[in-house]
Amino acid sequence: MTLPSALPDLDEMQRLDAWWRAANYLSVGQIYLLDNPLLRQPLQRAHIKPRLLGHWGTTPGLNFIYAHMNRAIRQHDIDMIFVAGPGHGGPAVVANTWLEGSYSAVYPDVAQDAEGMRRLFRQFSFPGGIPSHAAPETPGSIHEGGELGYALLHAYGAVFDNPDLIACCVVGDGEAETGPLATSWHSNKFLNPRTDGAVLPVLHLNGYKIASPTLLARISHAELESLLIGYGHAPIFVEGEDPALMHGLMATAVSKAIAAIRDIQHRARQGTYMSRPQWPMIVLRSPKGWTGPKEVDGLKTEGSWRSHQVPFGDMDNLEHLRLLEQWMRSYRPEELFDAHGAPRPELLALAPHGRRRMGANPHANGGTLLRDLRLPDFRSHAIDVPAPGAVLAESTRVMGGFLRDVMRDNPHSFRLFGPDETASNRLGAVFEVTGRTWMAQRFDADDHLAPDGRVMEMLSEHACQGWLEGYLLSGRHGLFSCYEAFIHIVDSMFNQHAKWLKVCRDIPWRRPVASLNILLTSHVWRQDHNGFSHQDPGFIDHVVNKKADIIRIYLPPDANTLLYVTDTCLRSRDRVNVIVAGKHAERQWLSMDAAIAHAEAGIGMWEWACSDSTGEPDVVLAAAGDVPTLEMLAAIDLLRELAPTLKVRFINVIDLMTLQPREEHPHGLSDDEFVSLFRPDVPILFAYHGYPWLIHRLTYRRSNHGNLHVRGYKEEGTTTTPFDMVVLNMLDRFHLVMDVASRVPMLQPQAAHIKQRMRDRLNAHRQYILEHGEDMPEIRNWQWPTPPLA
Amino acid sequence: MTLPSALPDLDEMQRLDAWWRAANYLSVGQIYLLDNPLLRQPLQRAHIKPRLLGHWGTTPGLNFIYAHMNRAIRQHDIDMIFVAGPGHGGPAVVANTWLEGSYSAVYPDVAQDAEGMRRLFRQFSFPGGIPSHAAPETPGSIHEGGELGYALLHAYGAVFDNPDLIACCVVGDGEAETGPLATSWHSNKFLNPRTDGAVLPVLHLNGYKIASPTLLARISHAELESLLIGYGHAPIFVEGEDPALMHGLMATAVSKAIAAIRDIQHRARQGTYMSRPQWPMIVLRSPKGWTGPKEVDGLKTEGSWRSHQVPFGDMDNLEHLRLLEQWMRSYRPEELFDAHGAPRPELLALAPHGRRRMGANPHANGGTLLRDLRLPDFRSHAIDVPAPGAVLAESTRVMGGFLRDVMRDNPHSFRLFGPDETASNRLGAVFEVTGRTWMAQRFDADDHLAPDGRVMEMLSEHACQGWLEGYLLSGRHGLFSCYEAFIHIVDSMFNQHAKWLKVCRDIPWRRPVASLNILLTSHVWRQDHNGFSHQDPGFIDHVVNKKADIIRIYLPPDANTLLYVTDTCLRSRDRVNVIVAGKHAERQWLSMDAAIAHAEAGIGMWEWACSDSTGEPDVVLAAAGDVPTLEMLAAIDLLRELAPTLKVRFINVIDLMTLQPREEHPHGLSDDEFVSLFRPDVPILFAYHGYPWLIHRLTYRRSNHGNLHVRGYKEEGTTTTPFDMVVLNMLDRFHLVMDVASRVPMLQPQAAHIKQRMRDRLNAHRQYILEHGEDMPEIRNWQWPTPPLA
Repeated sequence: MTLPSALPDLDEMQRLDAWWRAANYLSVGQIYLLDNPLLRQPLQRAHIKPRLLGHWGTTPGLNFIYAHMNRAIRQHDIDMIFVAGPGHGGPAVVANTWLEGSYSAVYPDVAQDAEGMRRLFRQFSFPGGIPSHAAPETPGSIHEGGELGYALLHAYGAVFDNPDLIACCVVGDGEAETGPLATSWHSNKFLNPRTDGAVLPVLHLNGYKIASPTLLARISHAELESLLIGYGHAPIFVEGEDPALMHGLMATAVSKAIAAIRDIQHRARQGTYMSRPQWPMIVLRSPKGWTGPKEVDGLKTEGSWRSHQVPFGDMDNLEHLRLLEQWMRSYRPEELFDAHGAPRPELLALAPHGRRRMGANPHANGGTLLRDLRLPDFRSHAIDVPAPGAVLAESTRVMGGFLRDVMRDNPHSFRLFGPDETASNRLGAVFEVTGRTWMAQRFDADDHLAPDGRVMEMLSEHACQGWLEGYLLSGRHGLFSCYEAFIHIVDSMFNQHAKWLKVCRDIPWRRPVASLNILLTSHVWRQDHNGFSHQDPGFIDHVVNKKADIIRIYLPPDANTLLYVTDTCLRSRDRVNVIVAGKHAERQWLSMDAAIAHAEAGIGMWEWACSDSTGEPDVVLAAAGDVPTLEMLAAIDLLRELAPTLKVRFINVIDLMTLQPREEHPHGLSDDEFVSLFRPDVPILFAYHGYPWLIHRLTYRRSNHGNLHVRGYKEEGTTTTPFDMVVLNMLDRFHLVMDVASRVPMLQPQAAHIKQRMRDRLNAHRQYILEHGEDMPEIRNWQWPTPPLA
Repeated sequence: MTLPSALPDLDEMQRLDAWWRAANYLSVGQIYLLDNPLLRQPLQRAHIKPRLLGHWGTTPGLNFIYAHMNRAIRQHDIDMIFVAGPGHGGPAVVANTWLEGSYSAVYPDVAQDAEGMRRLFRQFSFPGGIPSHAAPETPGSIHEGGELGYALLHAYGAVFDNPDLIACCVVGDGEAETGPLATSWHSNKFLNPRTDGAVLPVLHLNGYKIASPTLLARISHAELESLLIGYGHAPIFVEGEDPALMHGLMATAVSKAIAAIRDIQHRARQGTYMSRPQWPMIVLRSPKGWTGPKEVDGLKTEGSWRSHQVPFGDMDNLEHLRLLEQWMRSYRPEELFDAHGAPRPELLALAPHGRRRMGANPHANGGTLLRDLRLPDFRSHAIDVPAPGAVLAESTRVMGGFLRDVMRDNPHSFRLFGPDETASNRLGAVFEVTGRTWMAQRFDADDHLAPDGRVMEMLSEHACQGWLEGYLLSGRHGLFSCYEAFIHIVDSMFNQHAKWLKVCRDIPWRRPVASLNILLTSHVWRQDHNGFSHQDPGFIDHVVNKKADIIRIYLPPDANTLLYVTDTCLRSRDRVNVIVAGKHAERQWLSMDAAIAHAEAGIGMWEWACSDSTGEPDVVLAAAGDVPTLEMLAAIDLLRELAPTLKVRFINVIDLMTLQPREEHPHGLSDDEFVSLFRPDVPILFAYHGYPWLIHRLTYRRSNHGNLHVRGYKEEGTTTTPFDMVVLNMLDRFHLVMDVASRVPMLQPQAAHIKQRMRDRLNAHRQYILEHGEDMPEIRNWQWPTPPLA
């Protein structure tokens, strides 16, 4: 099936060019003008913004592409969104959405008239206004233009499971140099033409970054073509600078690309074409700052790095003022806007209608399409725990069973992402109902590869995170599982997504989207085999710097609490949920009922581990995380023998945010609750999963903070045994007992004796592992004192 | 100039194969054996390690490549280092360096005999032993095999300015999927064949990651070739599995590649060839777990993902024990090792000699080659500051002058790195003595591009950081300048480098290397034009989680202190130094002499801003960072008018680590010093550059911590004016005065009045910016009370 070529006639070309001129006019206006938007008066200094901020360089290219995509949408009734990769392309997207009417639909005070245009110009990069890049405030955007690298990933994320959607994704040649963008071309190996939509990448070569040229604009045509073919694309080149010629070339290129996409999809959906297709893409090579001033102050400007930002400032210079007026008038605004300042009808006629306008496409405001997940009852996956510690289980394997049912019941709106670690992270049950997404070559010996698989594995944390972000922002659900240490690879992506969510809270027309759920398993304490390079629990520290109402951090100590937490996270909206849970076989502590009660509170005493029922405890022992919980309970077991009269309170923390004051975080305990739990005046020893100072940072305002001593990961590690890892960081049962002995007044008479016994145990441990290479059986097999036989 | 093809004869092929078998034998031994290294007794369970850890899959391929590189080194007397990209290739590099003798040279207890081999096997992934990947402990390595993505960048970093060096860089097909690796192929556009060495990439396609296939192994041969040509390479393919054939193919490929490199270099150095060459590379496609068991328990293993890690465990299974013995004996150890367990002489004869052995190449232990920089006197760049605040200067522009002289005086051992922001960050003076490194196409209008330029700009923070790491670890110096928010892109790379440095401290044969210097300018407070996405000061929080003796954080408040700090950082060794300094024109506070005294201490009172000479201050006001210093001084100015009798102490902090207890950081103040400076019992208000809780985390142990109130960035921001940015985060002079009014007992009678006046000022500010779009002149032009005219 091939579409008619449908190339524009002269009249249509002129109208296309008029749209482009209008968008360029509106872009320059945003960067420069405070007033006199239609240039009905001669331009004066007072009409110019006092601070000139914004980026012209990439803007005319974006306007050109937008205009041509509009034409294709109208011609073929395409469901399309626009992803503007170039960093500071804000003026372009705003200009086009204002022209098509979708901007004024969500911002009625910026109407399609002269006063609206004045506001449109004034608000840009102005206090109380809008940013200089496509942002949450921009209708039609799912992609912040601030940090570069993720445009293609977001575009692919949006079209997975959206068979009728095309994401036109403009990749700037600056962004193309980033690592994440360079590898994200390979996303096409994960795109199923039968069940997914399509991405139409437009690589926009305008030649320069801030000051340097761009790499892809300075390799030979043959090399560039070879690279793009190597990435799996069939590139169509549109190169030049004469608008009249370029409109024809671009219209032809877009028609060819859309026809190719439709052809691929048609054949795949008819079943006649099942190998991986060579997807079309467009390379647009146009001058930086196209249609802007050729020269400023005698220096080449159009087609040069000098066009990157504001091509000329110093507007007290009359020559510059004249140049600006000349430049803006070159777009012939009087032909474009009517007496009221509205776009003329023949211009408006070029815009698609209603939700086909890219600024009004609901996929770019995913919350409007979001449906709740059909969630199976997590209780049905519960582990039977007859007594604390009575059974062993791999927590993430239990979670995997739940996720399998979630996948089964939501076959088009939930995906799992991870860098080739789904099975390694013990989530393999999902492969009972789906496969790993894979459109490239397959062999018999492969493990669960499928073109329609819904587990997305690529050895790129950037790709996993970026795809998931695009999938969520277009109204679906998902979870990303990752090694704890290497989640830092996407620290900056997390920042950007958390900032996006924070800004959206204040934008009424943006509807809530599903939360971004990150499972950190293969965590710091069980990287004993991978060694020091794989040991870093600092992502939590990174996350807590973001706004409290956006972030949640959960450290479920066993499988049943993990089930509850997973269910909670999958139901939540507009958050980033971080779950840290081990994958190894560990003792299970709580029955499902107990787990629900505990996880619902997020923090609480475990009565069966406490011995303070008769009065004020002598010490409060707290733990957050599965390994610290195990070690603290083992320490309590030791203390029962060493100091039988010691009154101990044990507190387990799942929801780390409960530690913060309530004024700082909605989950925070009130001061009264906190003091009542941790007691006003007794030593507190806290065994924490990550860097210990985070607990101090969360609790320094608490009145009993002075009593608090924290053990955690202090950046010691190597290739050794699991127990030795906690010993190296003094988080093990023996060191914890020594800490208690040092700090509890009533133990002072015996403290030296207790500590000597613990040191003996530590020496015996050290001897044993150096000889045997594994932990002592008494440590490996330790059980909580009173479990019945499992 | 073309080298003779010098292909191996049958005898040489057999010796090559013997080396390979020996390396494979030693690799399997490391993974499995605790004892009986030469299999002189029948293999028993007791000879096997209790925990089997390690990765076989990639290892035989690495061994194969190493053997062939050795041959090339010997034949052509090549100065070569080996960068093992594949994550868990540790056994291979260790095996080969042991065979060539370089391992025993630095670890004499692991000698080339039976007992040494026993220790070699036992130590691998064993408590007290060595990690499972190439690591600082591995002779010949400048690259940790833990986190993937940076192998090529490290290799390029090592060969810049090392014209005689070749870095053989093995890129695993897993790693090749990461973003950083995908873009780092383009490093060849920054490599000057006249003055730099060469990288010989070997893309090793073994087909599988942990469980999934790899992308590059599952695209067509044509597509892959196209991709690599697109990256600027001329790929030579070596594909198959029959060792006899593969040795011949590989020997030919290596000869061709070396000849091509020599030819390119020869022509470039003769001046007959100045365009960008197409550099050779090798694609090695071989089975995963090559030469390992074909099948285990009836399942395909060689050539499958099942070979990724330990191909079979459960060594209580006698069948497995037998299989292991069979497998190891298939390498015919009796032909390889003599009666004492030493490699036989004919094997040893294959190794290069002395420093030509890749495990002994000094470039891979850069500290041995490191020379101090020739540092110009930073004092000669001092700004004249006749009185505090009397002059304005752009701090980083002043620093740029110093860096220019550093570049001029160190033309082969210092480079500057940054993602196209050198000029934007006001370091442009360096272009007076050098250009931007650029081997691709150049046009007349370009700005300071040069094939021999020493400023390396690529829009990839990963590339900048990775190149610099490679450059430093091979014994040179450099500095990376970056936008503060986007340095998070390399959070994880920073982690790995800091971990590398920490481990090296305990390895006596690793000599100190130059510190990794990061300049964060374009910082959070002056992203008012870029908006919220560009605002994140959290890299400091990330950095302080690493070991105290590795990290330093400096916040110089003006140009002269920045000069001192830069000089200090460039002289330091084995650290990561983070400098945060603004690029905008700001008031200058300290003369050079005062700056030296202050920066040397890292923290101190500025007497001229204090009014507590007559007794105990009523309040201590502290600031860290240029913008907080400005705002706090402006607040003091306001307080002098509002509360003339208030006794104020002003403290400025440059070296953030002074705040930590001395036991926690070598730069930390003692408790006595801290209390004497910040006083035991008065309110302390601290204006900090970044997230405020970091100051609490650093000071929570201080006895006067309860008095401390911190203002900083609390994740509020947008596109607005510079002053409005501090207002949004309550770090501005008016909020600071309100904080003082709230907290100082003697001000209570006037507090309500003072606060109302400040609120009025804030309202006036808000009104003004909404109308004018820029800050009020009285704020922009504020000066410290008593400066003489500048």
